Amino acid sequence: MSSSSSSSSSSSPLKDEVDIVISTMTNLDFLETWRPFFQPYHLIIIQNGDPSTTIHVPHGFDYQLYNRNHINRILGPKSTCISFNYSASRSFAFMVSKKKYIFTIHHDCFVAKDPSGKEINALQQHIENLLSPSTPFFYNTLYDPYREGADFVRGYPFSLREGVPTAVSHGLWLDIPDYDAPTQLVKPLERNTRYVDAVMTIPKGTLFPMCGMNLAFNRELIGPAMYFGLVGDDQPIGRYEDIWAGWCVKIICDHLGLGVKTGLPYIWHSKASNPFVNLKEYKGIYWQEELVPFFQSASLPKDCVSVQKCYIELSKQVKEKLGKVDDYFNKLADAMVTWIEAWDELNPSG
Amino acid sequence: MSSSSSSSSSSSPLKDEVDIVISTMTNLDFLETWRPFFQPYHLIIIQNGDPSTTIHVPHGFDYQLYNRNHINRILGPKSTCISFNYSASRSFAFMVSKKKYIFTIHHDCFVAKDPSGKEINALQQHIENLLSPSTPFFYNTLYDPYREGADFVRGYPFSLREGVPTAVSHGLWLDIPDYDAPTQLVKPLERNTRYVDAVMTIPKGTLFPMCGMNLAFNRELIGPAMYFGLVGDDQPIGRYEDIWAGWCVKIICDHLGLGVKTGLPYIWHSKASNPFVNLKEYKGIYWQEELVPFFQSASLPKDCVSVQKCYIELSKQVKEKLGKVDDYFNKLADAMVTWIEAWDELNPSG
Repeated sequence: MSSSSSSSSSSSPLKDEVDIVISTMTNLDFLETWRPFFQPYHLIIIQNGDPSTTIHVPHGFDYQLYNRNHINRILGPKSTCISFNYSASRSFAFMVSKKKYIFTIHHDCFVAKDPSGKEINALQQHIENLLSPSTPFFYNTLYDPYREGADFVRGYPFSLREGVPTAVSHGLWLDIPDYDAPTQLVKPLERNTRYVDAVMTIPKGTLFPMCGMNLAFNRELIGPAMYFGLVGDDQPIGRYEDIWAGWCVKIICDHLGLGVKTGLPYIWHSKASNPFVNLKEYKGIYWQEELVPFFQSASLPKDCVSVQKCYIELSKQVKEKLGKVDDYFNKLADAMVTWIEAWDELNPSG
Repeated sequence: MSSSSSSSSSSSPLKDEVDIVISTMTNLDFLETWRPFFQPYHLIIIQNGDPSTTIHVPHGFDYQLYNRNHINRILGPKSTCISFNYSASRSFAFMVSKKKYIFTIHHDCFVAKDPSGKEINALQQHIENLLSPSTPFFYNTLYDPYREGADFVRGYPFSLREGVPTAVSHGLWLDIPDYDAPTQLVKPLERNTRYVDAVMTIPKGTLFPMCGMNLAFNRELIGPAMYFGLVGDDQPIGRYEDIWAGWCVKIICDHLGLGVKTGLPYIWHSKASNPFVNLKEYKGIYWQEELVPFFQSASLPKDCVSVQKCYIELSKQVKEKLGKVDDYFNKLADAMVTWIEAWDELNPSG
């Protein structure tokens, strides 16, 4: 692990309680555009690819960098649960972090502007989302009732107005939308230009496609479920690490009475990934037709009172019900167990 | 029934398939501001209060007007199911209409402007909402996937992308939000200034507070469930007619695989109702703590394949489970049955 640190005098919300997590094979020039917002925070950088390559980190950032060798050394044989392709390796950062909150962002995401032309401090909005409650049990038609200028509307039960703690804040993307390869191929020129000024709680019992491009969560509440699984060149599936994690996270949040929000903040996603390369996701597209019904009918027993217990229980159900879809899911179920063991080793108190 | 008609040459979407429904005790001057959008359509006006009073309808509108005497004559003894206070009497218009679509709006609602300053044709947006499918089984993070410039995001199951028919389009309000009396009293100056450029499907299994101020629906798909119940001076409850209908509608839409959307279009709601008068809703505020769990756990048997059958079944469950909360619910359950009998009498083919 190499590290560098710089002091910052700017005041930024919860600056000592947040880790910003990034993974890359190449460079981190995108950090320059985020400097005013990110520099006060600590970064965890995961280096994908060849560990002997040097990654250039712009000066002045306070960071720790881990490559495959570091992770093998820290996790030993349990390092098999960490995939080094795509963004899946960021799971390790979630595990090794000692902070309460994680914000993770892709290195092709830049600062977006709101309709008034003001640069959006995505991290600040995520923190606002995470610090205010969620309302998963009943729909509020004026969206987030805790935002300034909004409230619960007529007909909203008073007993539900305290809400529940928010575990996840899922942010969105202007410019290049997060489409699958077939949609990218069919609509190569489509850009998201619609700024929807809303933060929504995803209701209990409803699954969503969680994208890891612009995502924040409360590590203490849901960290052990934020496992990006086995993906990449040595696996039969790609581009499903965040989607898979999202399904597990949502099932567990619903079970434990935690909230998942989506909407603001936007980032500017400037570079579409290659749809031809993205066709590697084809097995995911095929399998998700079985995975979604599996998650929709999954239920966790009452004695699963911690995220870890929920996650181990879910791994058993994955093995039992998805193992017959493909042997990959047996391996994934085993990796889910390894992941929890590794998490508990690195986070002994929790 | 008095009627007047005028021909209109403007082209407006589905102009022969929509009834606009309004109720009032006083005047309909607000129609002047809606003239460019509403004049091509047919209106059904329900006169609350003294039938001998003359309601002034601005010239040039094509309308039918019903007062209490007309309704008593048409429904006979079954007219007991129609309350004449508040907006509940509009249920009669839903029943007597012969059109496929209904748009109902309060007479204190005016044309709103979008952020570019353009006047919003609320009816046109409702029709767009009703003509495009809903997606109640899985959350799409870029909101309505059928809008121009949007689609289903990565991780959205392909088998669910056709969606389901949309039964209800619930529009929102700029300026005065639809708050209950306690919230009105606590926040007398709060105004809704946030234009959220989104149309959302309310997921299956999630209830919402349906407001009748700015509401459209497909009469053929869900009409018999759009009953605004027993409210008003001779009842122990007020201001719950639309909320109650919304719960019934949502349960039945979920059961029959129909969609409910909320969001655009906005109207301009300029006049807050009197919060002291609105305190008449107090029993509703109290009862809704029991009503919401009742609806959340309500389930309809498989042989309920029509809205009417669903609604009759729901009336039985209301009597069985809510009758003990207050005798009012026994009366309401009976009125629900009367409502369906009257509906079928006026709509013999359906």
